Amino acid sequence: MRDVSVIGVGMIPFGRHRGKSTVDLAWPAVKQALADAGTDRADIEMTFSGSSYGGMLTGQRILNKLGMTGPPVINVENACSSGSTAMFEARRAVSHGDCDVALVIGVDSLTQFGGGTIPLVDDDWEVSQGMTMPALYAMRARRYMHDFGATEEQLAKVSVKARSHGARNPDAQFQKTVTVEEVLGSRPIADPLTLLQCCPTGDGAAAAIICAADVAGRFEGEAVKILASELCSGKFTNGFRDMTSMEIAIRGAGIAYEQAGLGPDDIDVAEVHDAFSIAELLYYEAFGFCERGEAVQLLESGETTIGGKIVVNPSGGLLAKGHPIGGTGVAQVVEIIRQLRGQCGDRQAEGAKIGLTHATGGGAMGMDSGACSIHIFAR
Amino acid sequence: MRDVSVIGVGMIPFGRHRGKSTVDLAWPAVKQALADAGTDRADIEMTFSGSSYGGMLTGQRILNKLGMTGPPVINVENACSSGSTAMFEARRAVSHGDCDVALVIGVDSLTQFGGGTIPLVDDDWEVSQGMTMPALYAMRARRYMHDFGATEEQLAKVSVKARSHGARNPDAQFQKTVTVEEVLGSRPIADPLTLLQCCPTGDGAAAAIICAADVAGRFEGEAVKILASELCSGKFTNGFRDMTSMEIAIRGAGIAYEQAGLGPDDIDVAEVHDAFSIAELLYYEAFGFCERGEAVQLLESGETTIGGKIVVNPSGGLLAKGHPIGGTGVAQVVEIIRQLRGQCGDRQAEGAKIGLTHATGGGAMGMDSGACSIHIFAR
Repeated sequence: MRDVSVIGVGMIPFGRHRGKSTVDLAWPAVKQALADAGTDRADIEMTFSGSSYGGMLTGQRILNKLGMTGPPVINVENACSSGSTAMFEARRAVSHGDCDVALVIGVDSLTQFGGGTIPLVDDDWEVSQGMTMPALYAMRARRYMHDFGATEEQLAKVSVKARSHGARNPDAQFQKTVTVEEVLGSRPIADPLTLLQCCPTGDGAAAAIICAADVAGRFEGEAVKILASELCSGKFTNGFRDMTSMEIAIRGAGIAYEQAGLGPDDIDVAEVHDAFSIAELLYYEAFGFCERGEAVQLLESGETTIGGKIVVNPSGGLLAKGHPIGGTGVAQVVEIIRQLRGQCGDRQAEGAKIGLTHATGGGAMGMDSGACSIHIFAR
Repeated sequence: MRDVSVIGVGMIPFGRHRGKSTVDLAWPAVKQALADAGTDRADIEMTFSGSSYGGMLTGQRILNKLGMTGPPVINVENACSSGSTAMFEARRAVSHGDCDVALVIGVDSLTQFGGGTIPLVDDDWEVSQGMTMPALYAMRARRYMHDFGATEEQLAKVSVKARSHGARNPDAQFQKTVTVEEVLGSRPIADPLTLLQCCPTGDGAAAAIICAADVAGRFEGEAVKILASELCSGKFTNGFRDMTSMEIAIRGAGIAYEQAGLGPDDIDVAEVHDAFSIAELLYYEAFGFCERGEAVQLLESGETTIGGKIVVNPSGGLLAKGHPIGGTGVAQVVEIIRQLRGQCGDRQAEGAKIGLTHATGGGAMGMDSGACSIHIFAR
C-alpha cells in the first residue's frame, strides 16, 4: 500500500441554488480542485463521485461538461456519507496502485425537491411511522438530557458555536451569528430540537484531487497526507439499547486511530457530522475528545471553538455550512485540507497539524443500517 | 495483485414483480449466492451493491434484511452497468487484499415507475429532445443497414435467437420462442426497431460471491477464475462520426483481452449487452467475434446460437432474460459462471471454458458519456 495525499480541493458556496442542475453545481468545484492541485484534466486516471440524488451517471455527466471523458468513473451512494465513501474508494484505488491520480466529487441538489425535507425510502417502515432523522435525534437528545443532566440551553450552544464559525466561512450557507435565545426561540421541529438545531437543506458540491504521495511532487498543490481512511456499516443492536452511544462512530474511530497510529489527543481540528445539535456532543464522546457524559463541559470550555485546542467544525459544520448530502463528506475534506495548509484566515485553527473528518449516513432505517466514514489527515 | 474467483452465484427470475421493493427482490438472490458458495453470512467482509433506482443505502437495507450488518457496504451506480461496476469494484478490493471474500449485488425495480419506460435525466438536453435509447439505437440500425446492406429481417433474427435461448432459461422474463414475422409484426418503437427488438422493462436481482483464489478451497462453491475486469467511460467523439462502431466497447475489450492474455477466438460463451437487436450485431464486431460488417453472417451461420462455437447470450440476453438495469451486469456473471461450471442443462454451451460478460450504460447522454464494464472468466 502506498501513502496517499490530497493535493487539491475545491467547493462552491453551499446554499440554495434553485434551478441549477447537479452538473451545474459540481463542475465549478472540480475545476477549482484541478487548479488548486496544479493538475491538468488529463492527469485524472479515475473518478469517484458521491451523490444520493444526482441520478444516472452523475460523475460522467459532470466530467462531460469539462471535456474529461474516457477513464473509469465510479458513482457511489451511501446517503450522507456518499462523498466520504467516494473518498474511501478513491484512496483504495491510489494506495493499491490502480492509478496515481484520482478525482473525488461530492454533490447533491436538495432544492430540486422544493420543500424543507428530503425524500427518504418509502418502504422503510420505521420512516413511514415517523422515525425521520429529526425525530431520531430528538429522542437521543432527550435521553442524553435525562442521563447526563444536559439542558436545552446547553444543546443550543452547539448551534451558537456552529453559526459563529459559519460567520467566518464565505462558503457557508449561513454566515450570521445567533444567540442561545434565538436558537431556543426558533420554531420547534422535534422536541427538544428547534429549527436552528437542525441542519438546513440546500445545494452544494465539493471536489478533491488525491495522488500517490511519491508522485505528489509533480504537482504544484500543497500535499496533505491521508493517514487513515475507514468505512463501516451499522450493526444490528436490537433496538435502542444505548441510543446516545454512537456505536458505528466509536468502532470506526477505533480503526481509523489505529491506521493512523495516533489517538484523540493528537487531533487538532475535526469536521464531524453535526446534523443536529445533540449529534456534535455525542461525537465528542464517540471520538474520545472527552469522557462519556462530559461533552457539554468540553463545549462550554471553549476548547472546540476556534482558538481552542481541538477545534470542531471550524467551517460551521452541517448546522451552518449546510448539508447537501453527497457534497458534505468531500466539503469536510476541503475544510480540513485548508486548515492543515493554514489557508483559513480568521477561522484558522492555529498550528493545526492533524485533522479528522467524519460523515455518517442513514441510521434511522432499521436503526442499525447506515454508513460511517472517517478520514485522518496530516500536513 | 491476487487472483480472484467467483465461488457462488444466485438470482431471482427476472420479470414483473409488482409491489415488491428493491429489498424484497434482492435478498433471495443474496441468500442463493451464499448457499451456492458454501459461505456463511459472517464470511462476507465487504459488499458492493449496484443499482440505479434502489434509493438510499440500497445495499445496507438488503443486508439488514438478512442480518448481515457491520462491514463496509459501497453502493455504486453506473446506469446499465451498475451491477458490473459493483463487480469491478469488488474484484479490485479482493485482488488488492482489502478483503478475502466480497459480496456483489445487482438489483433494480422498474415496475415501480408503472409504465413501459424508465426515467432518464431531465436536464440532459439530448434526452429532452427525444434522443432516448430506442431512438439512438434505431439510428444505429439504419446506418448499419445503409452501410452493410443488413435487412430488417436479419435484425429480427437477433430477437428470434434471443427468445429461443430465453425459452430454455427458467430465470428469463420471456420463455416463449418467436418467429421473424412476429418480431417484425410487433408494434413499432423507433423505426426500424419493433417492440420485440427492444429489451423489456422489469424487475430483478442477482448476486455473486467472490474471493481470493488462494482461499477458494475453504468454500464448497465451485470456483471460476476472473481473468479480466475492466471499466471504462465513453470518450468525446464530436458527435456521430461512426455511430455503428462501438468505441467504448472496442477500447474496453482490448484492455480486457490483454489482461486475460487471450483474444476473441478463445471466448466460448458471452453475455453481451443486447438492449436492442442491432446492439448484439455491433458487439459481435466490437469484440472481434467477426470482422467489421460481417455480424449478420456470423448470426446466420448459427455459431452464436446454442450449439455454435461462440454462444452469445445463452441466457436469452437483455432481449429475453430481461434488463432490470442494476440487476443485469451481475445476472450476466451468474449465467457465465453456470455455463463454465456446466450447470445450464439444455441451454449449455458444451465444453465452455472461457466466458465474457459485457454491460454498458448510458451513451445517449451527450452520446459520449456512459460506462462500459467487461469481465472475462475461466473455469
